Amino acid sequence: MKLISYQFNGRDSYGAVVGDRVVDLREIFGTRAPDLKAFIAADLFSEAAARIATATATLPLVEVRLQPVIPNPGKIFCIGLNYGEHIRETGREVTEKPVIFLRLADSQLAHGEDIVRPRVSERLDYEGEIAIVIGKRGRHISEADAWSHIAGYSCYNDASVRDWQVHTSQWGPGKNFWKTGAFGPWMVSADEIGPDRKMTLVTRLNGQEMQRTTTDMMVHSIPRQIAYISAFIPLEAGDVIVTGTPGGVGNKRTPQVFMKPGDVCEVEVDAIGVLRNGIRDE
Amino acid sequence: MKLISYQFNGRDSYGAVVGDRVVDLREIFGTRAPDLKAFIAADLFSEAAARIATATATLPLVEVRLQPVIPNPGKIFCIGLNYGEHIRETGREVTEKPVIFLRLADSQLAHGEDIVRPRVSERLDYEGEIAIVIGKRGRHISEADAWSHIAGYSCYNDASVRDWQVHTSQWGPGKNFWKTGAFGPWMVSADEIGPDRKMTLVTRLNGQEMQRTTTDMMVHSIPRQIAYISAFIPLEAGDVIVTGTPGGVGNKRTPQVFMKPGDVCEVEVDAIGVLRNGIRDE
Repeated sequence: MKLISYQFNGRDSYGAVVGDRVVDLREIFGTRAPDLKAFIAADLFSEAAARIATATATLPLVEVRLQPVIPNPGKIFCIGLNYGEHIRETGREVTEKPVIFLRLADSQLAHGEDIVRPRVSERLDYEGEIAIVIGKRGRHISEADAWSHIAGYSCYNDASVRDWQVHTSQWGPGKNFWKTGAFGPWMVSADEIGPDRKMTLVTRLNGQEMQRTTTDMMVHSIPRQIAYISAFIPLEAGDVIVTGTPGGVGNKRTPQVFMKPGDVCEVEVDAIGVLRNGIRDE
Repeated sequence: MKLISYQFNGRDSYGAVVGDRVVDLREIFGTRAPDLKAFIAADLFSEAAARIATATATLPLVEVRLQPVIPNPGKIFCIGLNYGEHIRETGREVTEKPVIFLRLADSQLAHGEDIVRPRVSERLDYEGEIAIVIGKRGRHISEADAWSHIAGYSCYNDASVRDWQVHTSQWGPGKNFWKTGAFGPWMVSADEIGPDRKMTLVTRLNGQEMQRTTTDMMVHSIPRQIAYISAFIPLEAGDVIVTGTPGGVGNKRTPQVFMKPGDVCEVEVDAIGVLRNGIRDE
């Protein structure tokens, strides 16, 4: 099942994508699940599948205004330095524990929206990644149980403002500029992507391939990320983990490459789809 | 005006503290402002003052169950290394830009609740701080305008798990354990604490003074923090900035001091009051 959050006629909703049509799940579930996060928390996937199969009232996908897959996650964790080639290009070392930094929900944008190059910097870089969406609450989740806590997968562009990222030792500012965390186009539910499925992740800038990896190359696996994070704070339905970027970021190329107005950046994951965003100036 | 968020009879509410009584402002403002964040966004301070003056139905303060002052801030920014004595004790250097890391709303707790020492570490440390609560939206706020964006002030204990803070270069995990961000007891509205008011901040552990400073000793002033943060993301009503801890943290003492079950930690700010929390094991 492909799930999206969107606006239609000025109303926030969420739904399932079937071909080029959308089934409005907020209309079906009403106050039982007013948004996608609540739908996930209530585990309505099976019930939704039955309703979608018989749905007659649908919308054209091109007519809805997409939002970030989860517009209002309680927490967004990002994993740094999680592929060997990227660790090498940064001159850093493999860490025993996952490198974790946080992204703010207010920094997110949808598939099809423009990533914003801020007024204060021209060093705007892409980072293609795979996002996982948590399906149910858990603390001290074991690696063996971790897969059962995943509701689905999406593409993410963890766009980064490189000079602000290294103003100090802490990367937060460079990772939280307004309209830089692109999340979409949809979430593919976990029943369609089995545990440990090897996915291919590719980032293209203006059609040119800039990053490519497969998920078996992660330093800290998805179960390990879930176990580590849930050791310090409970994971909740709708929380997001952005699982790390491979080598090839613009900042570490010779010559360096930064995104500028008019560019188009795509993050493609074979099991999910393509997240596409233009770039504009603030 | 002293404002709190609380539960009473299982219902979430917020109100004003007058002596040892509470005026229920949710009851007064209803759907216009269902929580303290919405009250701040709607700028209902003057109207509330008039209503409080004539309120007859009040609750005893001791009978409500306090929540973190803002239980659901959209963003919580913490300023690291913002007092010279603390910078020196960590062996780090003054940075040209403020050091910013993020705290998750899910890591917060109220005045009177116990800070939780986690199962995975015994290196739980205090950090007494002053929190500011943002009053209205702004991007690219100038230092001159910054004071007008502050709704009020509170005490904060940015309790930190020191070994997890340095698992990697990024401090997030050590700063986001469940039930470690103590926020209270109340917010004092900005009209009662003028711009640049010199406040005294003291932290006590089991009655013994561990940290003391005055706010004129900040490396990066409150207006500078607001200007820097709002250059990368809009600040919104109810957002929180935790403005940094002075020297004297337990981790850097000889011998080291860590908080353990049964301890009581107090953060006192002369213009605000005393935030008091016990410690218990997870």
